[in-house]
Amino acid sequence: PGKECSWQIQFADDMQEFTKFPTKTGRRSLSRSISQSSTDSYSSAASYTDSSDDEVSPREKQQTNSKGSSNFCVKNIKQAEFGRREIEIAEQDMSALISLRKRAQGEKPLAGAKIVGCTHITAQTAVLIETLCALGAQCRWSACNIYSTQNEVAAPRLKHGVAVFAWKGESEDDFWWCIDRCVNMDGWQANMILDDGGDLTHWVYKKYPNVFKKIRGIVEESVTGVHRLYQLSKAGKLCVPAMNVNDSVTKQKFDNLYCCRESILDGLKRTTDVMFGGKQVVVCGYGEVGKGCCAALKALGAIVYITEIDPICALQACMDGFRVVKLNEVIRQVDVVITCTGNKNVVTREHLDRMKNSCIVCNMGHSNTEIDVTSLRTPELTWERVRSQVDHVIWPDGKRVVLLAEGRLLNLSCSTVPTFVLSITATTQALALIELYNAPEGRYKQDVYLLPKKMDEYVASLHLPSFDAHLTELTDDQAKYLGLNKNGPFKPNYYR
Amino acid sequence: PGKECSWQIQFADDMQEFTKFPTKTGRRSLSRSISQSSTDSYSSAASYTDSSDDEVSPREKQQTNSKGSSNFCVKNIKQAEFGRREIEIAEQDMSALISLRKRAQGEKPLAGAKIVGCTHITAQTAVLIETLCALGAQCRWSACNIYSTQNEVAAPRLKHGVAVFAWKGESEDDFWWCIDRCVNMDGWQANMILDDGGDLTHWVYKKYPNVFKKIRGIVEESVTGVHRLYQLSKAGKLCVPAMNVNDSVTKQKFDNLYCCRESILDGLKRTTDVMFGGKQVVVCGYGEVGKGCCAALKALGAIVYITEIDPICALQACMDGFRVVKLNEVIRQVDVVITCTGNKNVVTREHLDRMKNSCIVCNMGHSNTEIDVTSLRTPELTWERVRSQVDHVIWPDGKRVVLLAEGRLLNLSCSTVPTFVLSITATTQALALIELYNAPEGRYKQDVYLLPKKMDEYVASLHLPSFDAHLTELTDDQAKYLGLNKNGPFKPNYYR
Amino acid sequence: PGKECSWQIQFADDMQEFTKFPTKTGRRSLSRSISQSSTDSYSSAASYTDSSDDEVSPREKQQTNSKGSSNFCVKNIKQAEFGRREIEIAEQDMSALISLRKRAQGEKPLAGAKIVGCTHITAQTAVLIETLCALGAQCRWSACNIYSTQNEVAAPRLKHGVAVFAWKGESEDDFWWCIDRCVNMDGWQANMILDDGGDLTHWVYKKYPNVFKKIRGIVEESVTGVHRLYQLSKAGKLCVPAMNVNDSVTKQKFDNLYCCRESILDGLKRTTDVMFGGKQVVVCGYGEVGKGCCAALKALGAIVYITEIDPICALQACMDGFRVVKLNEVIRQVDVVITCTGNKNVVTREHLDRMKNSCIVCNMGHSNTEIDVTSLRTPELTWERVRSQVDHVIWPDGKRVVLLAEGRLLNLSCSTVPTFVLSITATTQALALIELYNAPEGRYKQDVYLLPKKMDEYVASLHLPSFDAHLTELTDDQAKYLGLNKNGPFKPNYYR
Amino acid sequence: PGKECSWQIQFADDMQEFTKFPTKTGRRSLSRSISQSSTDSYSSAASYTDSSDDEVSPREKQQTNSKGSSNFCVKNIKQAEFGRREIEIAEQDMSALISLRKRAQGEKPLAGAKIVGCTHITAQTAVLIETLCALGAQCRWSACNIYSTQNEVAAPRLKHGVAVFAWKGESEDDFWWCIDRCVNMDGWQANMILDDGGDLTHWVYKKYPNVFKKIRGIVEESVTGVHRLYQLSKAGKLCVPAMNVNDSVTKQKFDNLYCCRESILDGLKRTTDVMFGGKQVVVCGYGEVGKGCCAALKALGAIVYITEIDPICALQACMDGFRVVKLNEVIRQVDVVITCTGNKNVVTREHLDRMKNSCIVCNMGHSNTEIDVTSLRTPELTWERVRSQVDHVIWPDGKRVVLLAEGRLLNLSCSTVPTFVLSITATTQALALIELYNAPEGRYKQDVYLLPKKMDEYVASLHLPSFDAHLTELTDDQAKYLGLNKNGPFKPNYYR
Repeated sequence: PGKECSWQIQFADDMQEFTKFPTKTGRRSLSRSISQSSTDSYSSAASYTDSSDDEVSPREKQQTNSKGSSNFCVKNIKQAEFGRREIEIAEQDMSALISLRKRAQGEKPLAGAKIVGCTHITAQTAVLIETLCALGAQCRWSACNIYSTQNEVAAPRLKHGVAVFAWKGESEDDFWWCIDRCVNMDGWQANMILDDGGDLTHWVYKKYPNVFKKIRGIVEESVTGVHRLYQLSKAGKLCVPAMNVNDSVTKQKFDNLYCCRESILDGLKRTTDVMFGGKQVVVCGYGEVGKGCCAALKALGAIVYITEIDPICALQACMDGFRVVKLNEVIRQVDVVITCTGNKNVVTREHLDRMKNSCIVCNMGHSNTEIDVTSLRTPELTWERVRSQVDHVIWPDGKRVVLLAEGRLLNLSCSTVPTFVLSITATTQALALIELYNAPEGRYKQDVYLLPKKMDEYVASLHLPSFDAHLTELTDDQAKYLGLNKNGPFKPNYYR
Repeated sequence: PGKECSWQIQFADDMQEFTKFPTKTGRRSLSRSISQSSTDSYSSAASYTDSSDDEVSPREKQQTNSKGSSNFCVKNIKQAEFGRREIEIAEQDMSALISLRKRAQGEKPLAGAKIVGCTHITAQTAVLIETLCALGAQCRWSACNIYSTQNEVAAPRLKHGVAVFAWKGESEDDFWWCIDRCVNMDGWQANMILDDGGDLTHWVYKKYPNVFKKIRGIVEESVTGVHRLYQLSKAGKLCVPAMNVNDSVTKQKFDNLYCCRESILDGLKRTTDVMFGGKQVVVCGYGEVGKGCCAALKALGAIVYITEIDPICALQACMDGFRVVKLNEVIRQVDVVITCTGNKNVVTREHLDRMKNSCIVCNMGHSNTEIDVTSLRTPELTWERVRSQVDHVIWPDGKRVVLLAEGRLLNLSCSTVPTFVLSITATTQALALIELYNAPEGRYKQDVYLLPKKMDEYVASLHLPSFDAHLTELTDDQAKYLGLNKNGPFKPNYYR
Repeated sequence: PGKECSWQIQFADDMQEFTKFPTKTGRRSLSRSISQSSTDSYSSAASYTDSSDDEVSPREKQQTNSKGSSNFCVKNIKQAEFGRREIEIAEQDMSALISLRKRAQGEKPLAGAKIVGCTHITAQTAVLIETLCALGAQCRWSACNIYSTQNEVAAPRLKHGVAVFAWKGESEDDFWWCIDRCVNMDGWQANMILDDGGDLTHWVYKKYPNVFKKIRGIVEESVTGVHRLYQLSKAGKLCVPAMNVNDSVTKQKFDNLYCCRESILDGLKRTTDVMFGGKQVVVCGYGEVGKGCCAALKALGAIVYITEIDPICALQACMDGFRVVKLNEVIRQVDVVITCTGNKNVVTREHLDRMKNSCIVCNMGHSNTEIDVTSLRTPELTWERVRSQVDHVIWPDGKRVVLLAEGRLLNLSCSTVPTFVLSITATTQALALIELYNAPEGRYKQDVYLLPKKMDEYVASLHLPSFDAHLTELTDDQAKYLGLNKNGPFKPNYYR
Repeated sequence: PGKECSWQIQFADDMQEFTKFPTKTGRRSLSRSISQSSTDSYSSAASYTDSSDDEVSPREKQQTNSKGSSNFCVKNIKQAEFGRREIEIAEQDMSALISLRKRAQGEKPLAGAKIVGCTHITAQTAVLIETLCALGAQCRWSACNIYSTQNEVAAPRLKHGVAVFAWKGESEDDFWWCIDRCVNMDGWQANMILDDGGDLTHWVYKKYPNVFKKIRGIVEESVTGVHRLYQLSKAGKLCVPAMNVNDSVTKQKFDNLYCCRESILDGLKRTTDVMFGGKQVVVCGYGEVGKGCCAALKALGAIVYITEIDPICALQACMDGFRVVKLNEVIRQVDVVITCTGNKNVVTREHLDRMKNSCIVCNMGHSNTEIDVTSLRTPELTWERVRSQVDHVIWPDGKRVVLLAEGRLLNLSCSTVPTFVLSITATTQALALIELYNAPEGRYKQDVYLLPKKMDEYVASLHLPSFDAHLTELTDDQAKYLGLNKNGPFKPNYYR
């Protein structure tokens, strides 16, 4: 408000340029986000009804729902019932959000909030949106990825009159059109932004800078989006408070360690039916993602080797019972190669040339550059698509390398993310919105904030009932001894 | 030969009666076989091309292959190319069989063998059949299950002029017609039988008892078929030697402990996307199947409880770190119930009534009677099919129980069996055929035999190269000390 | 009775010859027994009071206990109080035996039994002996090993007037003198034998063959003793029934798999304080003992390699996630070498020459021949005793190999056996004695018997309350379906 | 130098008061240090030769070593040879330090350094001290704990003329006398301090404040000492730079997670011979220490429950497969209770009253206040010392609770710390000394510093050769992509 927002000019650069941002910048993404780029291919394993859809663009259809409104744009309104059931199934594993609904329903902490959102549109997102509405907010929503929308979920356009503009298989033009339809509506002006990847935030900055005068805060979910926000902040151009929910402990640990522990097995099985017992696997990178993958593979009887650049992570790998090697040392003997580095060209053409027949290669790290897939697009190699997401790359001598998801993230492309994990993210987003919307003047400046440790702990506590877990409470005497408040926070901010 | 085979009369009972055999007898099946009954529903996770098939019965089609022969009957001959690729993919994980092909190819140990087979017809079976042919045999084949045939694999009718009569979705009448077409051919008389479930053996006994005068042996794969053979033997009606390959150590350990360790996670994930971490699971039965399931679930962070009737298995469960409980004690709190007992009505309606909302119930044991599914077919409960193989059974108060595969075997219905495991079974079958076909007169009487320990060890040794495993050889001195032959067998027959 | 016992003649061979028996025969001992040979060195980790003992032989002392009896011979009667406390501590972990005491106390099933025993004399044995007395038996006892006696336990000479003749550090002459004192007493003739190693049985056969006319049965605990009994039986010289309790399932599984899983870590830590995380370990042999060792080491972060001669065990090792190698392939790189083979000269001087500095070598298998320790007794190598049970063998270039327990069994020499495991053995012995003593005429012939499966299951069930484990009972309907008696046995005899 | 050190006055408080410091302050010690307090009882498991020592105080003896010097004071100079061997054994597992010796030997980076040290005096410390000397330093040393000195190691007074003043069993007066002898020597003035617990630093501050004018830096190892330094710094009284090596990542991870994973099993086994399989254990606190304990216990077959106050750690426990409970819920059923909280009175008398017979209670957290041992010193309870470090506390009804180490740290009292872990700490100390001694003027102010991340990584890298681990190096291109220097640091400072 006081500070004049002036970046409408700076940001009037070529949008095409901007949208290439995620790949252009040589940034380090040790953490994986569900949103790498708005044009990443995305195969929702839970989407069952898309194949029979017709080919007419939703933008060309005239759609009116049962209440007479046409303030939405989705693929097929007839799938509403099926979508509603998927939402109900999702609700069963998102009891933290339901519990939040109940706790905050009386006070309507989001009364008056007008939230414009841009995220993956799935059953789990629907549960989030309907929670926000139950807490008093009005919502308009578009998709942050052109492939990831579950059409059947968008179909019911949710309860509470939420306006959804999204379908699976949007063109890039459709993508920006949908975002625009969310922001640009007569008589309705957003005062909160929930973003995943920063595209919505960018669009508002570029097209509707005045909107920011009313915005109380941005909640950003992805590595990419957070990176953009920090850059804005550094450049002095961030004119509203923003909450980085990507780096909250609960999200990090679940999205990386635990979620990868579950999804690596699923992704490999669904694509290749490989037996894990006795397989020799090399995992490149022993950060949280690598740790999760290795724990699962070792537990199922695989023999796992690690490559690392960081001696501390390498030492952890040793103590955890893995041999730390250079990729070259084992590349001829391994059955599976998995990248989890956040780096690029970790698996090179030279490595691929030396792999044995039937070796499986996949990426759990970030983007699609960890494996140098481009190097495989040469005339002497034959590509054969044997199943969805599975290519055999065939060498002149007949050797086949099994490449999964063309080097994109295996767990996005070939496995599902447990609803419970998404519940943690969604709960964190909801709490961040509530915090920013209700914070007293002055608590948050025009900067990027981490979720306060105490709210991080609150998110965790909301998920404990799912496990029937019972927390111990400090006595007064103990709290004094530890120098802590009985209600937390219990750990310093840097605690992982 | 000397002994007159007289059971054509005894077996002239109603075939309908006979085919109900597997469910009629109150037999104990602690081991799971891929073939429970010829009419079990079977969902081949690897079958991708069936949905678009037309509805004309193959029996009514006129089919001629590229060589002008019409001595076969399959669904769609056009899928041959796709089927061939699936076979090639399978070959990559069945190197033991390929290795056997190479080793025995010179001597053609099955030269002159005319094998009639009745098994699941999958890519892996195709590799087996083509191996038998490479070793000199002629083969005619039908399916042991009306649902399990991978049409695309049957399509090429294999190399070597193998005659295949099978398709996915046969009627019961089709089923017996296909078997009959295999056995009953002018100018060709089988001298070996490879059976899975005993239906082929039964048909020959009943319809063509004279064929047995030429048969040198039967190789039987399944619990059910082996059970039938032992009953025949007991009744003095078995007039040829039979080899029970179901109880070989390699097969048992792989089919039960290791295979279940892999497939329980896969089956649960593909159907429900459940997160394993922190889930409370009760596994009924701690035999090999239960041990495999528990190992995998514990490794992925589930909290596992066991029910057992046998104090020795219960004590093993305790030592392995599981609480041993009665089902009633934990039924209200668990998230997943898995039966692995070989028993019936282990999960009763009373248990189902007490489960919490969203509890998942499935069967890894045998048949479809471990969970009392029949008790759920009552008017006050609503069944809702939410996905393939997934039903929500809804109580009047809204509680849902998630029932998988209608109580049939989860790993047959909802996951894939690793090719490597099938390779072990197929190699065992091939060796058993070679042994029976080449055995000197008198080695095998008209009885049921276990595969000699030494051949069991040979099967294992053929699979070691897949793991790049190097066996140690005994010195003469050591062999003498141990009282063993340097080439094995190394363990007594009862060793597991 | 009917059959004349005639082996007094055959056994009048040189006793010196006989006592060398265990090492003389090139027998295969896949299972470990606590009793390898009566002259094995044995270091009881639980023996705290021996060091300050005087050097006068107990045989030369005049000892009279508080009741005026001198019908015993122990080291130091003054330790009685300390010994009593050790017995009470042991009782706490042997609740199965206490429970057996209570259950059978009323009926006194051993009333009239006069048991002569020869076993290790420890607190746990004392609990067994006092249980036998509580059930009605009279007992006289000597030690089966000249080193293993816990003097403080022998001191109180137990309750019930049990006569004990044993002390730590007997000479070989003392050893047979003690046995003789047990058997040869005026006015008291044994009618049951409980033996561990077969020395007592041999002595009676040789010296007092007439005693066998009254003996109702022998219960034998060790591999060696059981081997002797089978040889006698084979030779037609066994004139009383004998029970082989060594091969009962509960004992086997506990003594091997579970007990080794616990003791390998303990034995290595107490001797070398080695850190397990990241250590490269090669385990020779993947039978039950090897499986137990590997499970523990892998769980604590070691990288484990396996050597095997048997392809089936090798395949299990592969599936369990271990690389199967020849010892030569890894001998230069490993930090620890553990033998679990039952074989001899598994680790040769050549291997020892190639080990790296500080490599630890130990034996968990059998005897002291698995590592060729003799080959290290050459002039160019220096032996340095650095701690009890720990030798550094030093090569001319300064390389040190750390040899534990001089190649004898690590878990006997350097760790303790959990009381709970001993409880299982002791309970099995007690039940076997009761069974043989009470069996109706004709149930047991002059042969060697395995404990009936049902009693094996009973032993297991007596130990379940320690784990608060609750067995499920079959319904009548289920028992009928399975073809089982509701009270067991639940598994065939060959089940492991 | 420029700043006048004025705290000699402030610190002229009662020394008795000061020495109670660690227990007086209600500080939170989430991390365990080997040094809790200078008067903690400490049982060095590796000390074998103390029992036979005479009772004359070393201060009263006239000792002269082989070179004629009497500038030292130890227990028994005759043990020198044994001590030298213990040092050589330690060197074998401290190859990082040996490697540091070699790398830095040419340049003598500590030439001119006069280091006064006060740490535990063990073989591992000896290796550190001799390394410092090899790098050019002169050293004088005393013990930071009156019980922990390994006399045989102190005996040789090390090479390089190091002066040692320490013996096992010092009085409190001896303790300060030894420190004083190190600092107060004519013609020798310290310019570096290596402290563990802060007592040496305090003594210098109090008695010889002028010494600080020459001191270039303090390296402090323990939680307690670091806490004192931060307090000084906060109060503006710290007049030299200090390095907090306690909080380096390598040390933290090893001392807590990995070290506890190893020592919990060892500590329990050595004291109670308990079998882990099937035991029900409750672990209070799921920080790094708790995580290490739980991982080991679960791996060995125990059933583990967790209590937690922090919802984030509780959620991690859930995902790792542990039930999170309140202590009251399970206290009646568990076999073992382990505290790892950093809190006090976690196990109260009420809990102890409700434990079942034979329940084992021990502390892995900090200090001796986690279990309310004081509450057990009441007349109705009988204490019985059954073994070293093991007390049975007996209730009037006969119930026994097995209390280990009187509630002090189990792994200090009853197990050994792997040399490898101590190597990491020692290497960190050596590097910190080199860094402070050689830092250019101005790099470090009068404040407390963490070891730079890069040096932390260097410590890790020095330990990788022990595991034969091979680091991968970044290409220029990759380093640019990640925005990193090819030589590190590779992670932000907050990375754990």
